[in-house]
Amino acid sequence: MFITFEGIDGCGKSSIIIEIAELLKNIGYNVFVTREPGGTDISEKIREIIIKSEKMDGITEGLLYAASRRQHIVEKINPSLERKEIVISDRYIDSSLAYQGIGRNIGIEQILKINSINNKILWPNITFLLDIDPIIALERIKKRNKNDRFDKESILFHNKIRKAFLQIAKKYNNRIIIINANENKQVIIKKIFDKIKTFL
Amino acid sequence: MFITFEGIDGCGKSSIIIEIAELLKNIGYNVFVTREPGGTDISEKIREIIIKSEKMDGITEGLLYAASRRQHIVEKINPSLERKEIVISDRYIDSSLAYQGIGRNIGIEQILKINSINNKILWPNITFLLDIDPIIALERIKKRNKNDRFDKESILFHNKIRKAFLQIAKKYNNRIIIINANENKQVIIKKIFDKIKTFL
Repeated sequence: MFITFEGIDGCGKSSIIIEIAELLKNIGYNVFVTREPGGTDISEKIREIIIKSEKMDGITEGLLYAASRRQHIVEKINPSLERKEIVISDRYIDSSLAYQGIGRNIGIEQILKINSINNKILWPNITFLLDIDPIIALERIKKRNKNDRFDKESILFHNKIRKAFLQIAKKYNNRIIIINANENKQVIIKKIFDKIKTFL
Repeated sequence: MFITFEGIDGCGKSSIIIEIAELLKNIGYNVFVTREPGGTDISEKIREIIIKSEKMDGITEGLLYAASRRQHIVEKINPSLERKEIVISDRYIDSSLAYQGIGRNIGIEQILKINSINNKILWPNITFLLDIDPIIALERIKKRNKNDRFDKESILFHNKIRKAFLQIAKKYNNRIIIINANENKQVIIKKIFDKIKTFL
């Protein structure tokens, strides 16, 4: 089983994933938690290039994320699924669809194309979109990194990406479950865990 | 006008390109010489990852070359073509078709797909495939880098890529001109220059 978590920065994905993984382990499952970008040495190096380059074209960026994802699938996700583990990834293809496809105007079709291998995409069985008010998300980020600027531009950008994720959730409404991430953390975790249990 | 040179390592591309560029400049053209992989800062960084990684999947490699090429086109090739210069690139998409598409068994269609932007590929106007006997090519490489091993495996690999290039030249016989690179260098240069002149 392959589960992904998506949402804007500060939506609380990482800490919720830790608790969900713990709950799954407690009921006897082997769980492998991973994240994008990153997850393999090659992916980490690709991430460095993306972060440090200023003149990067949007399609170049989409191709680099696709390369990073491919290596992640081959080295980590596929072997873990073959061992019958539950794979949980913090971000996956929907982040590319939202950030590069819609955010950078590359187009969803172009992103899907470069992520297809022999016309196939490894889709997650279930994806949780942690939908949050960008103002709350940015306050969280600010608490984490005290030097981060919390300006109007960030709000506009996060709002754009939030809407992009909601658009993608509508397109893939059989796979993506929207979770109200403004709620209490334990309420969120219970909702997600109950949903996962219906799949097990 | 966009011209590319292709062929296995040691086929003599680089030194021939220098002379062709000089001849074109002598008759009044502005010429921009570039190369793949590389050509931009981002591409050089991507190249570093490809060279230094041992566990890299073939499709990851294809995506990284496509990313590098995309940045090369946006930053260098397109602006140069817009300035009405003659762009000469030492390797381009046919190298991906030969090395990853055929050599690493990714398939030509998959390589074409990840190199398409909005269903379009920036094709060169003309491509010279410098076709050479791999034994001669490897002797040249050996002279350049005295520590390079010159073994049976290298010959087999270079032979495979040589055949891959010939297969691609057959597929794109309107664009790719096969040049016998075993011949005298000045003879080769005259043939190529005469051919380019018919396009100007």
